[in-house]
Order: sequence, then structure tokens, then C-alpha cells
Amino acid sequence: MKEIGARTTKYPDGSDVYTLPVLRDPNDGAIITDSFDIAVYLDNTYPEKPVFPKDTKSLISVFDIAYVGQIWPAVKFPLVRAKEILREGSVEYYLSTRQKYFNQKLEEWSPEGPERDQHWSALEKAFTTVKTWYDKTDGRWITGDTFSYADILVASSLVWLSKVLHDDEWRRLTTWNDGAWEKLLADVKSECKVDQL
Amino acid sequence: MKEIGARTTKYPDGSDVYTLPVLRDPNDGAIITDSFDIAVYLDNTYPEKPVFPKDTKSLISVFDIAYVGQIWPAVKFPLVRAKEILREGSVEYYLSTRQKYFNQKLEEWSPEGPERDQHWSALEKAFTTVKTWYDKTDGRWITGDTFSYADILVASSLVWLSKVLHDDEWRRLTTWNDGAWEKLLADVKSECKVDQL
Repeated sequence: MKEIGARTTKYPDGSDVYTLPVLRDPNDGAIITDSFDIAVYLDNTYPEKPVFPKDTKSLISVFDIAYVGQIWPAVKFPLVRAKEILREGSVEYYLSTRQKYFNQKLEEWSPEGPERDQHWSALEKAFTTVKTWYDKTDGRWITGDTFSYADILVASSLVWLSKVLHDDEWRRLTTWNDGAWEKLLADVKSECKVDQL
Repeated sequence: MKEIGARTTKYPDGSDVYTLPVLRDPNDGAIITDSFDIAVYLDNTYPEKPVFPKDTKSLISVFDIAYVGQIWPAVKFPLVRAKEILREGSVEYYLSTRQKYFNQKLEEWSPEGPERDQHWSALEKAFTTVKTWYDKTDGRWITGDTFSYADILVASSLVWLSKVLHDDEWRRLTTWNDGAWEKLLADVKSECKVDQL
């Protein structure tokens, strides 16, 4: 990232950190850090299938913050799980950066017992809130019948959870909200014409 | 409200409370409680000038929650000011309901000193965040060139603040973010063709 001149993002304490994703566009040399900015860049540069319906960029940026704010109180538990499936060479960097981010050792992130239970409650509460957001649209997507970056935010964290959680943990999540989250992933597969997420 | 059969909303402890606004539509007898639901009803029933651009209802409902979440940490200070300008007959009900809501006496809502200072900081921080949301649109409104319920949310709380704050306090707010908030109110006046807000 230094080599290509990608910009950094910030730790909560204000210091710099390199984060993925980063986009380097071979067509024009643009280098973009941060998922939201990448999506905006791609919409502006390759507008065939936009992910921001007309005039929704600001609203979806607020949705992004609100969504992350919902998931955040529960995030350390899946981060523990993510560590378990990393390649050996990645573990050290993953741990050192996250431990710095949270100012907590791995063992303190989500210890089994009341704290883990609280993360489960927070995660279920978060998704139940997000379900009320889906209940307010007039289509299957947050922006009605148009698939957007708002759905990508929800779907991509669901994909992440489906990969990092243990099987029984993922099954637990799929029982919430009348199976809304497996259904959403199935809808995304169909919309994006992919076999697997 | 009981007489017309309007529904209640909730205190944080889950008990019922009657809140305004409530709409009774003389054309079809509909009775709607809660600002958001009223706006949705009016859009559906009288669609000449909608306040929810196509497919933005869910996004704007999330904006609503995010906006209130921003303003909330600072709200007790303007609530103290609001009490000062109420008619005598309203004060008792206003105080008893808000004191129940916060489980705090009026004197404890926003005492001058560090707590009041903290409310000011929270209010400035909130509006600075909301400014970053406006910075992300491609027009003067949250949904580009289309005035929407999102702008109404921001503008109506600004109107409220302009009414309840003391003159010097309101002037302080108007210096934030390069005068963005007085300008927004001027834009709303012009958009809504009203002389005064």
C-alpha cells in the first residue's frame, strides 16, 4: 500500500493505519482506500449498474454509520472467531493491530460467560433493529426494488459471519427474525448472479 | 386524544404516553400518531409534493434514528429553555412528563457548569456530524436537489432551537460550520415558500 501510495485510515486514537480494501484502477491509475469511497468511485466511473440509486449517497452513508453502530457492540465475538481461521502468517499482524485497536488482549475480547452472552444479545438485537429497517421498504431491498450499497453492507457482514462463526453459531443466527438473514443472502446471490457467497 | 381514539407512544420504561403531533384527516377519518407515520400517510394519501423521494422511506427512517441519536446527548439543555417560554398552564404537564421521561428533576437536566458545557459540546459535535452528511450529497438537500423528510427533520429541530434558545445562544449555534444552519433555514423558507419559520 505504501508502494502504490494508498492513503491510510485511522485508529480510534487518531494514529494512522493501512486498511483494506484498496482499489487501484488500471484504467486511470486512481487509488482509493475505504469501502464507501471505492463504491462511490466505481459508481461515478463505471455507471452501468450503480449501487447508489439517484440521490441516496448521503442517506446510505448515514445508513452505513447506523448499521455499523448496531453491529459494533457485538463485533469482538466474531473477531475472535475470525482469528481461528486465519493463515498462520496472518495471525500475528491481525492480533497486533486489533489488540491495539481495542486496547485489549485477544482473551479479553469476548470471554465465554456473561460477556459472550451479552455479545450474542447485542448481535440479535442489532439484527432485529435492521429487520425493522427492511420492514419499512416497499420492496425486498432497502431502496425498494433496487439493490444498493445499503444491502451490500448488511449482506457482506452476514457473509463474513457465515464464514467465521462455528456451524452451530451460524445456525443460531439463521433462526432469528423468521429466517430473514439466510433469505437475504439467497436474494443477494440471485441478484448478483453468483453461486456462492 | 382519547376522545378521537389516537394511539399512544411509549416512555422509555415501556408505559404509555400520549404525544403530539397527531393527525386526524377530515377526508377519510384516518387518525395517525407520530411524525414519521404522519409524513408517510400524507405522502400516500396526498402525493402532489412527496417528502419521501422514490424508494427512500427506509433510508430516511434510519436517518431519523441516526439524527435523533446525534442530537439526543444535548437535548436536555434546550428542553430547559423550552420550559421558560411555555404558557403557565402548560408548565406543570410539561415538567411532570419530562421528569418522568428522564427520571430527573428540572434542576438536574442541564445545570450550568461542566454539565451544560458538555451539552454544548455534544450539540456542536452533533451538528458537525450532520454537516458531513450534507457534504455527501450532490445538491443542497440530503437527497440531492429534492427536498425531503430528512431535511425537515434537521430544519424542524433548528427552528425549535431558534425559538427556545436565548438570543446569544442561538447566535453561537449560527457560527458553527461556516453558518450552514442559518443558510439551511433560509433555503427551507425559500423551498417551502414561507416568510417565517
